[in-house]
Amino acid sequence: MKKLIIASTSTLHGGNYLEYILPVLKNHFSKVSTLLFIPYAQPGGISYDDYTNVVKNAFATININVKGIHEFSNPIEALENAQGIFTGGGNTFLLVTKLYENNVLKTLKKVVENGTPYLGSSAGSNITGLTMQTTNDMPIIYPPSFETLGFLPFNLNPHYLDPDLQSKHMGETRETRIKEFHTLNTTPVLGLREGSWLEVKGENIILKGNLTARWFIQNELPIELEAETDLSLI
Amino acid sequence: MKKLIIASTSTLHGGNYLEYILPVLKNHFSKVSTLLFIPYAQPGGISYDDYTNVVKNAFATININVKGIHEFSNPIEALENAQGIFTGGGNTFLLVTKLYENNVLKTLKKVVENGTPYLGSSAGSNITGLTMQTTNDMPIIYPPSFETLGFLPFNLNPHYLDPDLQSKHMGETRETRIKEFHTLNTTPVLGLREGSWLEVKGENIILKGNLTARWFIQNELPIELEAETDLSLI
Repeated sequence: MKKLIIASTSTLHGGNYLEYILPVLKNHFSKVSTLLFIPYAQPGGISYDDYTNVVKNAFATININVKGIHEFSNPIEALENAQGIFTGGGNTFLLVTKLYENNVLKTLKKVVENGTPYLGSSAGSNITGLTMQTTNDMPIIYPPSFETLGFLPFNLNPHYLDPDLQSKHMGETRETRIKEFHTLNTTPVLGLREGSWLEVKGENIILKGNLTARWFIQNELPIELEAETDLSLI
Repeated sequence: MKKLIIASTSTLHGGNYLEYILPVLKNHFSKVSTLLFIPYAQPGGISYDDYTNVVKNAFATININVKGIHEFSNPIEALENAQGIFTGGGNTFLLVTKLYENNVLKTLKKVVENGTPYLGSSAGSNITGLTMQTTNDMPIIYPPSFETLGFLPFNLNPHYLDPDLQSKHMGETRETRIKEFHTLNTTPVLGLREGSWLEVKGENIILKGNLTARWFIQNELPIELEAETDLSLI
């Protein structure tokens, strides 16, 4: 049975890394002693090791060890043997490129579908949708494809942001961008605000956190989904 | 001699389409009786015809006719015969895809380098850089390549937006995104605020409008460039 936590963001304003969601993760990864971390989204500034250390420090507080996938000579084996997997945020174009380059996408899909518990935040959440085409990120690298893991039967827009009604900026709002996506694509899109996450257990996809999420269907008006909505039923 | 106007935006808050820049365009297109318009960036909502009509109405006020490239059976011939060319805004991924699909990129590059006056706004400006990789747009379609026209020896970020210091949103600022670009790419990036444009005459690239623009170089702190700066000299 698939078991995923798909978070809009790793960090809430004023909080520490993953802090707001640690109680949930403690339960989600209750059978995990060592978590496999995928740092591929990290576009420099800090190294994979340093990024992995940030994750280590967060999970140490719930007594889970963390090892980066880059520490293994064979990343495919690392995924196959993983007790649990976390893909962190950064740049989605880079993450997807590295997943293809390292030839791990298929294995990642397989093990998570077979029940290895998965956590994604931001870019690591984006890839759980059908494609990465509703990312907010800049195309800093050209990926071999926009296709992603398809654990969800729709796409995600993490860090969903409501329009600033006071703004005099003429660049597109997030909602406008998603509408543009829907002029060419039929895939529904969930705008997941910071502080929300999805809990996937088998076929059920429950919206968690205190906020509503915005649901976009082609040629329909977007609607607000209440927390605890099961997205597999809509 | 290359002659380009490269605008951050088509429209300023509270203004009409191209209104703020019409006096400049009247001079730029002084020898143009009919302008060729490229509506490829338009992701639906309105048709190419409707989009072209918006442009027609704006240019009618300075006595220039407008014809859409989609009205010609042979778009390559249309470009070769054009007195002046305008590529409008929309989605850069879509624009670049259509330019490749319609096989017009090479001809567009050639005629503009040979002196056909060009106007770009937003997505139509993005493509005047070396690549489209510093666009703000959502990847709603997978283009054959991110490479663009390279009229400028750098990349553009149109609709450049300063960070909102009051924001509690944890998504990346525009500056952070451009820094991410520079972890993988050496190409300089110009953040062009709404109301600014570049005037290219041969090798000279002058920043126009009343605002400063933000200049990003790999591994250096960004700097503010004053209006009238010649970017070919920095």
